[in-house]
Amino acid sequence: MDKALEFVRRNRERYIEELSALLAIPSISSDPEHKDDMMKCSEHAVDLLKAAGIENTKIHSTDGHPVVTGDWLHAAGQPTVLIYGHLDVQPIDPIELWDTDPFTAHIKDNRLVARGSADDKGQVYMHIKTIEAILKTSGSLPVNVKFILENEEEVGSPSLPKFLKASKELLKADIIVVSDSGMLAEGKPAITYGLKGLSYLQIELTGPNRDLHSGTYGGAVANPAEILARLIAKVKDENGRIQIPGFYDKVIDLSDRERELLGKVPHSDEDYMADLGVKALWGEAGYSTNERKGARPTFEVNGIWGGFTGTGAKTVLPSKAYAKVSSRLVPDQDPSEIAQLIENFFNENAPDSVKVKVTRFHGGRPVVTPIDNEYMKAAERALQESWDHEVYYIREGGSIPVVADFKTILGLDSLLLGYALPDARTHSPNENLHLPSFYLGIESLVRCLYYFKK
Amino acid sequence: MDKALEFVRRNRERYIEELSALLAIPSISSDPEHKDDMMKCSEHAVDLLKAAGIENTKIHSTDGHPVVTGDWLHAAGQPTVLIYGHLDVQPIDPIELWDTDPFTAHIKDNRLVARGSADDKGQVYMHIKTIEAILKTSGSLPVNVKFILENEEEVGSPSLPKFLKASKELLKADIIVVSDSGMLAEGKPAITYGLKGLSYLQIELTGPNRDLHSGTYGGAVANPAEILARLIAKVKDENGRIQIPGFYDKVIDLSDRERELLGKVPHSDEDYMADLGVKALWGEAGYSTNERKGARPTFEVNGIWGGFTGTGAKTVLPSKAYAKVSSRLVPDQDPSEIAQLIENFFNENAPDSVKVKVTRFHGGRPVVTPIDNEYMKAAERALQESWDHEVYYIREGGSIPVVADFKTILGLDSLLLGYALPDARTHSPNENLHLPSFYLGIESLVRCLYYFKK
Repeated sequence: MDKALEFVRRNRERYIEELSALLAIPSISSDPEHKDDMMKCSEHAVDLLKAAGIENTKIHSTDGHPVVTGDWLHAAGQPTVLIYGHLDVQPIDPIELWDTDPFTAHIKDNRLVARGSADDKGQVYMHIKTIEAILKTSGSLPVNVKFILENEEEVGSPSLPKFLKASKELLKADIIVVSDSGMLAEGKPAITYGLKGLSYLQIELTGPNRDLHSGTYGGAVANPAEILARLIAKVKDENGRIQIPGFYDKVIDLSDRERELLGKVPHSDEDYMADLGVKALWGEAGYSTNERKGARPTFEVNGIWGGFTGTGAKTVLPSKAYAKVSSRLVPDQDPSEIAQLIENFFNENAPDSVKVKVTRFHGGRPVVTPIDNEYMKAAERALQESWDHEVYYIREGGSIPVVADFKTILGLDSLLLGYALPDARTHSPNENLHLPSFYLGIESLVRCLYYFKK
Repeated sequence: MDKALEFVRRNRERYIEELSALLAIPSISSDPEHKDDMMKCSEHAVDLLKAAGIENTKIHSTDGHPVVTGDWLHAAGQPTVLIYGHLDVQPIDPIELWDTDPFTAHIKDNRLVARGSADDKGQVYMHIKTIEAILKTSGSLPVNVKFILENEEEVGSPSLPKFLKASKELLKADIIVVSDSGMLAEGKPAITYGLKGLSYLQIELTGPNRDLHSGTYGGAVANPAEILARLIAKVKDENGRIQIPGFYDKVIDLSDRERELLGKVPHSDEDYMADLGVKALWGEAGYSTNERKGARPTFEVNGIWGGFTGTGAKTVLPSKAYAKVSSRLVPDQDPSEIAQLIENFFNENAPDSVKVKVTRFHGGRPVVTPIDNEYMKAAERALQESWDHEVYYIREGGSIPVVADFKTILGLDSLLLGYALPDARTHSPNENLHLPSFYLGIESLVRCLYYFKK
């Protein structure tokens, strides 16, 4: 193990170069224009896996973007670890807020800045380098390892369930390791034991059948942008409590024990506000920031648009207004049920003066992994030794829908070991990977594989 | 007069060709990229004026886009009519909703379709052809005529007041004729005796200092798109009554006589809804559609945007959200005062969790011309004879800020003779000019000049 750790420390410079090449591929899964880049990225990942010593690599076609698999299965009698990650990335807009090109990685303030550096190519790459370090220094791995890398995580992994169902034997394992979450802060390792689910919808309101002159028609015809604002305003009361009927019905309330655990996770509202540049927070009354983020369901406006949005002043009464809205879910909320409740709410509250059209995007189930899982204990030891710091158990507000699919389809729990820092700006301009955490993270994954051994 | 009318009837085909050439110039005043087109359009207008027999044509530089003037002053002892119009046009977005290129005029269903066909190049052109018809057939005009054509009407005529102040002698007249409004319907001529004013603002809300992952931060941080929706929703109560303190303080309530006059203007809510494709109307309770449109102040959302508005689903909690909002004003509301009240409303109601920035765009004063004006009576006769139909007196919801400036700076009342039909789609895709109204409109303007003669 020590030789492998030493190897990791010696190869840091090469890691930056190799990872930058992977980050240069604009694998934006939501944009049809980048379809070819998904295959290009998959082929690039296969090359990296092979170079590390992974065998039986394969690019599988799906109804959507491809899935990459590979394995190393020569640790007889030892457990099999299935490593999951995704090669696709979020869109890059608003592009004007990036300081540099999103797909030309560069180092700034000890961070590698590029789209996908933290979410999730950088973390996928850490696992590949873990395998390489052990195989190059000892010739064999302490446990059996399988990889599954997908290209549709940022659009909700629509093709993965079918692939999982068809590949149960190929993917048979004892535990899944997912690195697509984050550390608590620099030097503070964390294991994420809970993820929120997601319901995401687009609301389209149509008022008049064409854009109107706001002078000639204003005041006499319902304005869909105004009606949309009125509907969104109705979703929450003054206490931030969601007013959609039935929304909280299946929410498992936080136990005293869980509130105590979440309360141990260091957090300062003052620091949080300073980091975000806001003078006040706003959320569901009666809950702390940690609880709101990790363990309470939410409703957010992800986008809103309608009418004239260009430079200058155009006096138009728009025909249409749109919003993209989403709820983050907690056990036992069901994504389809919540999407239906949201859809009903907009349909039932819209006045007769507008037409409502609702489109549903991908959803995901919320998931919680039991804290007494044996692999989780091994990982805690690996993380603790790598950073010489206690490990926090946290619940994450983000969604990784596939983790729920792993449980449902493969019957496997997932171990969420994340290495992104809170200021990694995932999904935002200037996404970045903190390099000291990246280097130590690879070391912690080396230790993990040794401690997973029976 | 009859020879001039006959000339108009003989030249219809040529008019279409000439007007199409004028419409081909994309004179979008709000877009700096079209700066050169404003001059090109002015030169083109000068050519048309000269060809019609107008003398002393001149293109005047201003701080913004140029102003065109010209005159014919050989009717000794007769009144002088100042004809105003504008050569600039609205932006063309949403461009995808145009059936054909906005600057390539074509005839469809007896309408000439192009940006500016109705608002206002087509109507400017009618006046020029009126002069041409009379001068070509009789060699002199019955009254003195001056032209003032500007290129900034669609952005609030910012340069015009200064020009008017500096050109009082040049523009000295007895009455101003403005053709930038509409007929009541095909075959139903109207004189607009009132115009609304305008206050137009852009609201910018900033929440967190960067776009955030809506999973990681959602529920704990105020979402500016949601806050913006809540603020807009607060502007009106359920009865459509504007809740901005002081908003109605200076509104002159409708007299019984005026409600009676507006009630005479034919209108069917059913037809109106059918034309707009809506199942219900919404506006200030206690007022008819005609009253809401023409004589009551309004508040409209002209545009709203924030967060992810592209294809697909991006789970972002946006840093910023924007709205363009405007109020149409009636006497004696003051545009600056109302803009201040709106600004105060957003500032005072915004929670501490967001920052508010308000930008004011151009405004305009509301105006009403006395119904007993002698030139208005002459115009009524001209319109009545041209269409063989009674003339309606209406108040228009649109704003022509310069009409207030004419009164304040030049001390002149304006006579608003408009020829656009209600379905002219001004400011919208597929703007069009109804050709039978266009042809008869020129004839009515010929008659006007004769009846203006003392």
